[in-house]
Amino acid sequence: MEQQHHQIIQHTNGRRLYDITPAVTRWVADSGMQQGLLTLYIQHTSASILINENYDSDVLVDMESFFERLVPDGDSLFIHTAEGPDDMPAHVRSALTQTSISIPVVEGRVALGTWQGIFLYEHRRMAHKRKVLLHLIGE
Amino acid sequence: MEQQHHQIIQHTNGRRLYDITPAVTRWVADSGMQQGLLTLYIQHTSASILINENYDSDVLVDMESFFERLVPDGDSLFIHTAEGPDDMPAHVRSALTQTSISIPVVEGRVALGTWQGIFLYEHRRMAHKRKVLLHLIGE
Amino acid sequence: MEQQHHQIIQHTNGRRLYDITPAVTRWVADSGMQQGLLTLYIQHTSASILINENYDSDVLVDMESFFERLVPDGDSLFIHTAEGPDDMPAHVRSALTQTSISIPVVEGRVALGTWQGIFLYEHRRMAHKRKVLLHLIGE
Repeated sequence: MEQQHHQIIQHTNGRRLYDITPAVTRWVADSGMQQGLLTLYIQHTSASILINENYDSDVLVDMESFFERLVPDGDSLFIHTAEGPDDMPAHVRSALTQTSISIPVVEGRVALGTWQGIFLYEHRRMAHKRKVLLHLIGE
Repeated sequence: MEQQHHQIIQHTNGRRLYDITPAVTRWVADSGMQQGLLTLYIQHTSASILINENYDSDVLVDMESFFERLVPDGDSLFIHTAEGPDDMPAHVRSALTQTSISIPVVEGRVALGTWQGIFLYEHRRMAHKRKVLLHLIGE
Repeated sequence: MEQQHHQIIQHTNGRRLYDITPAVTRWVADSGMQQGLLTLYIQHTSASILINENYDSDVLVDMESFFERLVPDGDSLFIHTAEGPDDMPAHVRSALTQTSISIPVVEGRVALGTWQGIFLYEHRRMAHKRKVLLHLIGE
């Protein structure tokens, strides 16, 4: 049994879903691991990880429309507003989605379903540099 | 240290929570593993995993009532409608719940709390065949 | 490769976020583990785990304001009301947040981002004794 660490840097330029599937699957393929467990962890509280449909890009648009309506920017409910109208909504969106995801690795492959992709969900409107940690354990 | 893989197939016949606790705990018991970590991963983006109360079935009814109101079918907000009025809501419900859950195994038992059960949450109205991967690492 | 188990008991005295970061990071430091994976698992369905900003306490206040509005106590939608007006909302809040979180351990440190803290989110108004299981695997 062995383990490996990696970090993916994703530069974001606005609020939307960024497909990180190729960066993740390439690293796992290069690791040589055949059976194991992959964990993704995002080191932020205003961006998150989401497994989502990767086929029709309209799904990404609709997902964002839903969250914009559910957690509106500039909501007068919020008192934490010093960092802008999209800051507290970003923390709430993070709470409602995922900070970590674990996926089995089977026969050398990240065991995603046919229509699944791995996305970094940027919740802030300004450009950011986001860090996702990858941990792989297995053999 | 060793690891084992397994797959649970759950046939669903409509939108609701399906209790998969017995199938999960039986496999872990049969594995012979005494101490470790169990990870469940669902290979879909319109069904999810949820740890929920397993005692009063009214909780399952209320959970569904809440999600039906929060993410209404046929919402005019959505443009991804080709697969039916419940398709995009199913993706949103999946984003709001869990794709993976990890639970420690202690003294040969999945360490669920007294009132906790493991549920597959089907978000589509039509019948589906759903796949949940199980990964167990420990000794 | 080795693994260790631990349990954190958190006494709560009302609905809010409780910072368990010190208890978690101290245990991992004491474990002597240098590289690995930490998993937190809460054994309840009316309290949850949340990675959140740990800097401005207004974020915690706003988070709670949002959830109170999204899942109002005493909502006439719910039929599971025998345990009080905050019981079914507590189950829904748990479903919308996290029951388990996994975080890599890198160079002997839980790899939290700069502004991240680990919180137990108590969703009930009465005092409770909450159990969080910790599992650590690595070397």
